[in-house]
Amino acid sequence: MKKTKKLRELLNSKKITRLVGAHNAVSAKLVEKNNFDAIWASGFEISTSYGMPDTNILTLTDLVHVTGIITNAVSIPVLVDGDSGFGNCHNVMQSVRLLESRGVAGICIEDKPFPKVNSFIDCRQSLIDVDEFCGRIMAAKDAQIDSDLVIVARIEALISGLGMEEALKRAYKYQSAGADALLIHSKKDTTCEIDEFMGHWNGNIPVIIVPTTYPSITLHDMDRIGISGVIYANQGLRCMVKATDMMLKELYNSNSLNSISNQISSMDEIFSLQNMSSFKEVESKYLNNDYITNRLV
Amino acid sequence: MKKTKKLRELLNSKKITRLVGAHNAVSAKLVEKNNFDAIWASGFEISTSYGMPDTNILTLTDLVHVTGIITNAVSIPVLVDGDSGFGNCHNVMQSVRLLESRGVAGICIEDKPFPKVNSFIDCRQSLIDVDEFCGRIMAAKDAQIDSDLVIVARIEALISGLGMEEALKRAYKYQSAGADALLIHSKKDTTCEIDEFMGHWNGNIPVIIVPTTYPSITLHDMDRIGISGVIYANQGLRCMVKATDMMLKELYNSNSLNSISNQISSMDEIFSLQNMSSFKEVESKYLNNDYITNRLV
Amino acid sequence: MKKTKKLRELLNSKKITRLVGAHNAVSAKLVEKNNFDAIWASGFEISTSYGMPDTNILTLTDLVHVTGIITNAVSIPVLVDGDSGFGNCHNVMQSVRLLESRGVAGICIEDKPFPKVNSFIDCRQSLIDVDEFCGRIMAAKDAQIDSDLVIVARIEALISGLGMEEALKRAYKYQSAGADALLIHSKKDTTCEIDEFMGHWNGNIPVIIVPTTYPSITLHDMDRIGISGVIYANQGLRCMVKATDMMLKELYNSNSLNSISNQISSMDEIFSLQNMSSFKEVESKYLNNDYITNRLV
Amino acid sequence: MKKTKKLRELLNSKKITRLVGAHNAVSAKLVEKNNFDAIWASGFEISTSYGMPDTNILTLTDLVHVTGIITNAVSIPVLVDGDSGFGNCHNVMQSVRLLESRGVAGICIEDKPFPKVNSFIDCRQSLIDVDEFCGRIMAAKDAQIDSDLVIVARIEALISGLGMEEALKRAYKYQSAGADALLIHSKKDTTCEIDEFMGHWNGNIPVIIVPTTYPSITLHDMDRIGISGVIYANQGLRCMVKATDMMLKELYNSNSLNSISNQISSMDEIFSLQNMSSFKEVESKYLNNDYITNRLV
Repeated sequence: MKKTKKLRELLNSKKITRLVGAHNAVSAKLVEKNNFDAIWASGFEISTSYGMPDTNILTLTDLVHVTGIITNAVSIPVLVDGDSGFGNCHNVMQSVRLLESRGVAGICIEDKPFPKVNSFIDCRQSLIDVDEFCGRIMAAKDAQIDSDLVIVARIEALISGLGMEEALKRAYKYQSAGADALLIHSKKDTTCEIDEFMGHWNGNIPVIIVPTTYPSITLHDMDRIGISGVIYANQGLRCMVKATDMMLKELYNSNSLNSISNQISSMDEIFSLQNMSSFKEVESKYLNNDYITNRLV
Repeated sequence: MKKTKKLRELLNSKKITRLVGAHNAVSAKLVEKNNFDAIWASGFEISTSYGMPDTNILTLTDLVHVTGIITNAVSIPVLVDGDSGFGNCHNVMQSVRLLESRGVAGICIEDKPFPKVNSFIDCRQSLIDVDEFCGRIMAAKDAQIDSDLVIVARIEALISGLGMEEALKRAYKYQSAGADALLIHSKKDTTCEIDEFMGHWNGNIPVIIVPTTYPSITLHDMDRIGISGVIYANQGLRCMVKATDMMLKELYNSNSLNSISNQISSMDEIFSLQNMSSFKEVESKYLNNDYITNRLV
Repeated sequence: MKKTKKLRELLNSKKITRLVGAHNAVSAKLVEKNNFDAIWASGFEISTSYGMPDTNILTLTDLVHVTGIITNAVSIPVLVDGDSGFGNCHNVMQSVRLLESRGVAGICIEDKPFPKVNSFIDCRQSLIDVDEFCGRIMAAKDAQIDSDLVIVARIEALISGLGMEEALKRAYKYQSAGADALLIHSKKDTTCEIDEFMGHWNGNIPVIIVPTTYPSITLHDMDRIGISGVIYANQGLRCMVKATDMMLKELYNSNSLNSISNQISSMDEIFSLQNMSSFKEVESKYLNNDYITNRLV
Repeated sequence: MKKTKKLRELLNSKKITRLVGAHNAVSAKLVEKNNFDAIWASGFEISTSYGMPDTNILTLTDLVHVTGIITNAVSIPVLVDGDSGFGNCHNVMQSVRLLESRGVAGICIEDKPFPKVNSFIDCRQSLIDVDEFCGRIMAAKDAQIDSDLVIVARIEALISGLGMEEALKRAYKYQSAGADALLIHSKKDTTCEIDEFMGHWNGNIPVIIVPTTYPSITLHDMDRIGISGVIYANQGLRCMVKATDMMLKELYNSNSLNSISNQISSMDEIFSLQNMSSFKEVESKYLNNDYITNRLV
């Protein structure tokens, strides 16, 4: 099944789709290895991997580059964090064209102006006009080639303090504009906003959440209020940072690599993540005179 | 002090230089934060981060891209793993030109043919002719613009089973050809080969080791036998893989993010790695009418 | 029709397929505008556009970058000059995977070692072993996803002075290995070699020529001896160089732009090549409140 | 002399600096070969070479890529067309950091919002607030490392129909903000606006013009009214398009390459632009056992 169709079906199924953030091929492969449903190609993670704040310093070209590496590395669908679409409707269309050509299953765009600031930073969180954003959704939908590609509209009204009514108004408008799913973002440390939003929402398209600041929410809670998908957006990177930092501190203070041997995977595990078995299979075929001669006859 | 000069002085000092592998900006920043002397921009780590085997599937262009991101992110010197130089002497010169322009302090090239296979894989480990490799060292030295840039010649004779005599012959030849330092590689699980090599080596340039397979060697051991630098080449990536894999397994089987909260760094730690403070300073200046008006007068 | 299938049908038709070299989107668009059948994404042209000799200084990554821009810009098929495949069979497979993902219709690989030197330079023109190259063709065929993608095997035996017998032996072997077409290269200033080759060739796959050094050959000649395709490989770039050089000389010696006004296209022609009409259509839709409001209802 | 200092001195000299647009290495090399003073890395030309409108569809990453290729290819200074700076002051600073690291001598930024539209298209030509743009100039000046790097402030007030008073007000403000030079743009088909602007301008920094629509202006005219630099911004590309289009039309209708032989440069001219002599010198040294052996002793 095409990955676009797979993501579409996952989000429209009864079961909650679980996506996990990644910033390169190996972090994505670990998500797939652990049986999650899909990858979230996270702007926050990718920015950090470049040593940059999550404020549109990286460009669409950079995102396309990283996303292409990720989609080549895994067989599960990739939903890419398209931020606010890198400019106006022209840039949104170019984003859809390039990201779709790199094999993503879905693209999420948010209703903030370019350049955006990460939602958890208390700075310039105003939104663009609702109709202008509807124009961008329409542009995105018209730019996609594969009709199964999933366009997710991300609502930042609760982040920017515009209130529940605005959030709901935007939700219905974005559905009318053609969005295939919604992402409702909240930075509260409880589920209060999400609960209230879902209590009122009566639309037809799936709703996705990102519980970074309200980590206590359970899959059962989500199911109860009608959530279709959850993005664990940045825990992979944060785990990598914590573990590597601790290991390096220990190594610095020690006399040898022995001190950290229980904190690292084996070389064989890494070779496996590199697809070394496929490498060896190639060696045994196309560099092997017997194989070639037999096949030539 | 220029980073090239810094690396040169570190390797020629009495103290053992400790380099740690990195594959992107954030992994490099963690190395710097933990006070190590320099970064090893590791071909093995970078390949893995792209989901590829360490067999020259990635190109010089890819390495230049990643290396530029790393050098921009840290203030300590970066020694880059140039593999076998991506082809012949022309490619070696292009490698030096492009990598130097991206701010590396040193470039390591090894005496294997292109395309190489990772030294720990038992496959195609033959070497190129010693004089041909001397030609590559000369080409590299003639291509560098900053005379302080460090060209490291990596000897794979022990990896390829050619024996100690060949390793030493190459060591002296590479020194004569202009190498600024040597990297003697061994895949033994004891220090026997390294001990023997250093017992015979009587040259004038620093020697670097990579104790991936003989992790028990201590800094004291290295000091005793005359080693100048040690590269902890891949432990950062292997730590990231182990920790992320465990966290994801736990998250998959749990009901909420709470289950893994003690395994991840705080968002504030990530913002700090992103240089968010510098971002805020920029906001307070060039987006601030008072600041602008005052400065205009 | 898929572009891969289109190229395959063109080469297997009665009519001679005419391909013209390009090195960026605008040079490719001019080829399409003038009704040629397909684009040759030329290593020679692309190297020159980067200011580099045609000797594998540019990497597969660079070629993939340029080729992706070209395939996005035209609707006719693109056959890409894959040089000698950028290394061994692993690199050939990676070339096929990446280039196919960028939308090429065919990939040409030649039987020279990496790094190659342009066929018209009298330097290092030896070939790789015929069976080893058959292994690369098999690897390429096994790597393609779309079975219509055309793998062209380029024979350099006449360039390297190995003679007609060797050229013909390789032709039949490459056909057996699975090549979809042959490119027989000659640097003679007459058609003697090509005539002789075609006089003996009795295979089933199409044969392509590149008459850079024997420009007098006519389409009628080609038809008579059984040629299926002709690549005008570098005339576009050479025309651009001659015309621009003359214009700049005149401009340098003149007092105003008026002196060269008859040597340049109008701005409107350039806007047309930029697809400005499509730009304006986008403006009139997704930035237009009336359009958005009407569509929302 | 550093290229930054060279450009600075050229613009501040008595003689009019003549810059010519380029979009890749070969077009830039032709400008240098014909003795012009500097390269204009033109957004309009580069967009066209990618098959895109000049409306910020290409990203900073793309511009940095092309500009790095150009600066590596020529020894004369390169002034890069930075459009409106790719976003806000953060993006301006990132633009300066990346472009400076690629070796440009100067960066031009204009007072339009992102995403911009080419000045000759009658669409969305409004300007950003004058103080906000002063903030961007300050940000650019604070981001440069080499104090000789030239920051050019481009005034679009005449393009957007805001009149001469606004243009002059902005000119003085931009000078106060730290701009090293001004570019005053006009799309009139006479020199009337430029004459009037220069009649009133009484500042201390050099003024540059782009006479695309008023090609009759002579160097003598410019000298008389006090212009310091002139950019022939797009004639190279327009010449290439006209000549290539004509050649291809002729080739399509002809039977052989002979028909266009007088319209193309020789292969040797192209080899010369590729620096083939330097390639051969490398071959004769680092691939030559005698050279290596002699140097080793």
